[in-house]
Amino acid sequence: MNQITKSELAKRIDHSKLRPNYTRQEIEKGCEEALAFGCAAMCVNPSMVEVAAKKLAGSGILVNSVVGFPFGATLPEIKAAEAGKVITLGAGEIDMVINIASAVEGDWDHVRKDIAAVVEAAADVPVKTIFETCHLNDEQIASACRAATEAGAAYVKTSTGFSDLGATIHDIMLMRKSAGPNVKIKAAGGINYYEDAVALINAGADRIGVSRTAQILSGAP
Amino acid sequence: MNQITKSELAKRIDHSKLRPNYTRQEIEKGCEEALAFGCAAMCVNPSMVEVAAKKLAGSGILVNSVVGFPFGATLPEIKAAEAGKVITLGAGEIDMVINIASAVEGDWDHVRKDIAAVVEAAADVPVKTIFETCHLNDEQIASACRAATEAGAAYVKTSTGFSDLGATIHDIMLMRKSAGPNVKIKAAGGINYYEDAVALINAGADRIGVSRTAQILSGAP
Repeated sequence: MNQITKSELAKRIDHSKLRPNYTRQEIEKGCEEALAFGCAAMCVNPSMVEVAAKKLAGSGILVNSVVGFPFGATLPEIKAAEAGKVITLGAGEIDMVINIASAVEGDWDHVRKDIAAVVEAAADVPVKTIFETCHLNDEQIASACRAATEAGAAYVKTSTGFSDLGATIHDIMLMRKSAGPNVKIKAAGGINYYEDAVALINAGADRIGVSRTAQILSGAP
Repeated sequence: MNQITKSELAKRIDHSKLRPNYTRQEIEKGCEEALAFGCAAMCVNPSMVEVAAKKLAGSGILVNSVVGFPFGATLPEIKAAEAGKVITLGAGEIDMVINIASAVEGDWDHVRKDIAAVVEAAADVPVKTIFETCHLNDEQIASACRAATEAGAAYVKTSTGFSDLGATIHDIMLMRKSAGPNVKIKAAGGINYYEDAVALINAGADRIGVSRTAQILSGAP
């Protein structure tokens, strides 16, 4: 295993506080953790973007807002409006959930249009596309990577962390192989230990989304 | 226990197919079940409203679209836009998730404004407000009932069915006592048997949201 130092690992972490019952105070505490660890971003729900943006202003740590989260089962224009709105409130990255049913049906045209609507609304803000890979087979994951690439996504991402299963090394390797060379990979869901985070990065993940950041970083050599 | 006949019970059921990986074909099959049983409504995600509306046209069975589902953690204007859009696509009822964090914080002004934005966008379409009661204590549930009543909600509803716990008899009785006299009650989440459905109705539920409709109705005398 290629080791990764604590500070190098922190730079790849989107510190995530996405449970819908988290209060402003808990989000602010999460932002303080992201600052202390030196994470890449703080991942929050749309209604907490303003709170996080205020806390992280000037720090270089991005506010990462989810969109269409966690089901992705709404309409493209609603996801686009949500992305546009959170960006005005301070989001510097968007993690949108794709239309999972369309992916299962093989309606790649709709998957692509749905992502493209958000990419257009986000303008120069990078868009990560969450597939919820536990609902997809390998062929569908590969096709989703191609659709996301064609639609202008900056990242493909495995999971919301709120479904049956999270990131696997298998899926990360498949996504690295299937997405365009300029598209990055984010692993998320069920990542609780340093060793797993490092294994996912070594498999191709550029970023990892986790809530147990302190526990993960405490495992670094 | 006051018994309820199979057809009387069906009229109180919102037959729900909300998993984000359900395909159009599965939604159409759900609509056929709702038609066969004579349910009150068919509950679907926004991206499936058109499919359900086409299938149920002229039947008298309403298409019930969720909004801000299942987290409720987005912005009021986005929930309002989503409600307006699904109504143009054929939704005859809206089940919105309230801002759960605001309820936990005791920010009832925001809870009320968030609901009122959707009620206004929905115009004459009834709005049900999902509290996700598993995240709230009794005092918060009672306050949420008052906020929903003041904001013009047609129903207060216990749960999304996608969190830790669903409807309890205790919560239904508390909601019946706390909501305005013209506000109805919907029980949802974890209701899988006839006896539980009947107990929730006897406790005050006007409508129940279930996915295992066939199994529940098969228990009727």
